[in-house]
Amino acid sequence: MATARRARDRVREAFMLFINNDVVRQVLDMPACITAQEEAFARLITGESVFRPRIDMYVPCDRPDGYYRWGDVVGTSHGVLAVRLKSDIVVWPEAEDGTRSEKKFCMEPGTYCGLVFLFSTGSGEPLALMNDGYLQQMRVGGAAGIGARLLSRPDSHTVGVIGSGGMARTFLRAICAVRDITAARVFSPNAHHRESYAAEMSDLLGIEVVAVDTAREAVRGVDIIATATDSLTPVIQTDWLEPGQHVSTLGLREIAPETVMRFDVVVQQGREGLDLPESRIYQRDVPGSMGAYVAGTEEEQKRIPRGAAHQKVEREIPVYTDVISGKAGGRQNRDQITQYHTFGNWGVQFPAVGAHVFRRAKELGLGHDLPTEWFLQDIRN
Amino acid sequence: MATARRARDRVREAFMLFINNDVVRQVLDMPACITAQEEAFARLITGESVFRPRIDMYVPCDRPDGYYRWGDVVGTSHGVLAVRLKSDIVVWPEAEDGTRSEKKFCMEPGTYCGLVFLFSTGSGEPLALMNDGYLQQMRVGGAAGIGARLLSRPDSHTVGVIGSGGMARTFLRAICAVRDITAARVFSPNAHHRESYAAEMSDLLGIEVVAVDTAREAVRGVDIIATATDSLTPVIQTDWLEPGQHVSTLGLREIAPETVMRFDVVVQQGREGLDLPESRIYQRDVPGSMGAYVAGTEEEQKRIPRGAAHQKVEREIPVYTDVISGKAGGRQNRDQITQYHTFGNWGVQFPAVGAHVFRRAKELGLGHDLPTEWFLQDIRN
Repeated sequence: MATARRARDRVREAFMLFINNDVVRQVLDMPACITAQEEAFARLITGESVFRPRIDMYVPCDRPDGYYRWGDVVGTSHGVLAVRLKSDIVVWPEAEDGTRSEKKFCMEPGTYCGLVFLFSTGSGEPLALMNDGYLQQMRVGGAAGIGARLLSRPDSHTVGVIGSGGMARTFLRAICAVRDITAARVFSPNAHHRESYAAEMSDLLGIEVVAVDTAREAVRGVDIIATATDSLTPVIQTDWLEPGQHVSTLGLREIAPETVMRFDVVVQQGREGLDLPESRIYQRDVPGSMGAYVAGTEEEQKRIPRGAAHQKVEREIPVYTDVISGKAGGRQNRDQITQYHTFGNWGVQFPAVGAHVFRRAKELGLGHDLPTEWFLQDIRN
Repeated sequence: MATARRARDRVREAFMLFINNDVVRQVLDMPACITAQEEAFARLITGESVFRPRIDMYVPCDRPDGYYRWGDVVGTSHGVLAVRLKSDIVVWPEAEDGTRSEKKFCMEPGTYCGLVFLFSTGSGEPLALMNDGYLQQMRVGGAAGIGARLLSRPDSHTVGVIGSGGMARTFLRAICAVRDITAARVFSPNAHHRESYAAEMSDLLGIEVVAVDTAREAVRGVDIIATATDSLTPVIQTDWLEPGQHVSTLGLREIAPETVMRFDVVVQQGREGLDLPESRIYQRDVPGSMGAYVAGTEEEQKRIPRGAAHQKVEREIPVYTDVISGKAGGRQNRDQITQYHTFGNWGVQFPAVGAHVFRRAKELGLGHDLPTEWFLQDIRN
């Protein structure tokens, strides 16, 4: 009885941590973010880590020109299970030239809803609920570091960045965390953005970062090219590539399929998408998804732009675990041109990085306590 | 600018509701629970409601005789999206006769972790986070009401219940909500349990509920048989069935396949399980799951009992929506023996019932406010 009582007291005294982006920013540094992910990927080989791909759901929303979009992905690593939940409205405004881009928000433009919920796989205990914004930029950027460590020349010293947003920032930080980078150039279409990027990143990294007027200038002669944009058209051209360069990419359509054919080595981080048969409910041709459950009448579904799927590359592309397990080769010599596509393995990135953030926040006494008791119950469900 | 500021103020002043089991108990009555689900199922036909099946994940835990088990299911109906999350440890103790049963808990025996997270599909807004224990018993029990309304004789007045737990309680409540029930009999192996059940349910429902010593006695001559157990072996025998009876069932193995063959009409609530290819990672032969992602070494995976999959019935079984849309027939006359298996459509049960609970709690000022701002962010993820 005393043991049972002590056990219940333990539950009653436990707290789940609510961790916002400011706390994540305080406790998460790039080297740790990269290492945690590399460890989680390696554990996929042994079965210690497992994930299921992200699954999306589209539902008609209050706006007649948009849709509600849900996404969730689940995985386990480092003693935790993490589920990442996204809840947003998406709209696809049409530009004057007829092209459509995607805008998303939750409730009001400028706010987003993305949460990571962490549970202990040791005991089932709910550990933390955190905003995913900063973590998201770090995990995605971190992948550029993973790729650069795997496939760039060890003596790489210069980077050419295309893009000047949050991901372009973490891409460069991640590459600097794994290679001795001394200088970088940046291009993005908006001069003001690329200038701020250059100033901020020079400061942050203590290296020379220079804004340039064209993508061509940004990538000429550099050791590593990093493209971190949401561009719907290619941002570099095949004949710009130079022997020995490494290219780290974010978007599905930044690199033309014919350019991908020209790389000596191409590696994708992981596979995504559920291998489910297509139906009225489960659809593949949905923008920004690898496949999604779709609600709504035929009329409502017309709001969703179709035919945006990226072109298929006629090439077998190995994933990260294929290379580290020796099933596929990496860079063989100084002259090969290599590409790392930072796409995939999402489901284990969240538990790996999330567990690190949780443990650091706990050590430092950061975050907001919520009684664990709230999240438990004595009714068997 | 003023508009943008007002919008941001709206976000800042919004609260997400934390709703515990006590609040759910106060606001959720059985007729509303049944109606909400029937509406959601009907909307599956038009595509207004959509869900994806539950997906489980098994991970080695702290106990050498158990596994961590995760489950999540997502769906939309009634203007909300609900994700239901379960996080528990499962162990499979072996009885003296060599049979194994399943015990589950979160952190300590007697506590469970099951949560329903609700979002507005109108705006993306996070609306509520609730314990799922009471709601779970109501939604599962409610299904017995849905089935009885669909397939029992309208002049059914008596019920024979097998089982005396939480689900056996809500099964009877639900049947009483849709038929004019005047008397019930209950059997379960533990005399004390069936006596308490009889006393409590007589009181609650204002009808005569009598505990009997055998299952045979419980079901003889009644209009509706309700089996709400986790039995691994059949709880009724084929030759007990009488013309005109309706049988409402919970567990996958309560009714033997040969008994299922003898029903004139059999309807299952919905389909579950993902149609994914089997692999080292995605496994079908996992107890209590329709398929699950499984982590752990070969050695660790030996903890999981295998071969527990229920026997396949050699019969095409239509689902609820097939009957209400006219694709399959229901009861045709007074003499047919009908079965409703309350299994499936989980993903729309949670948003349907959850939306009702949320709106009632909001109206009555119940629940615990959490600042919505916590769950939103200004970093694009």
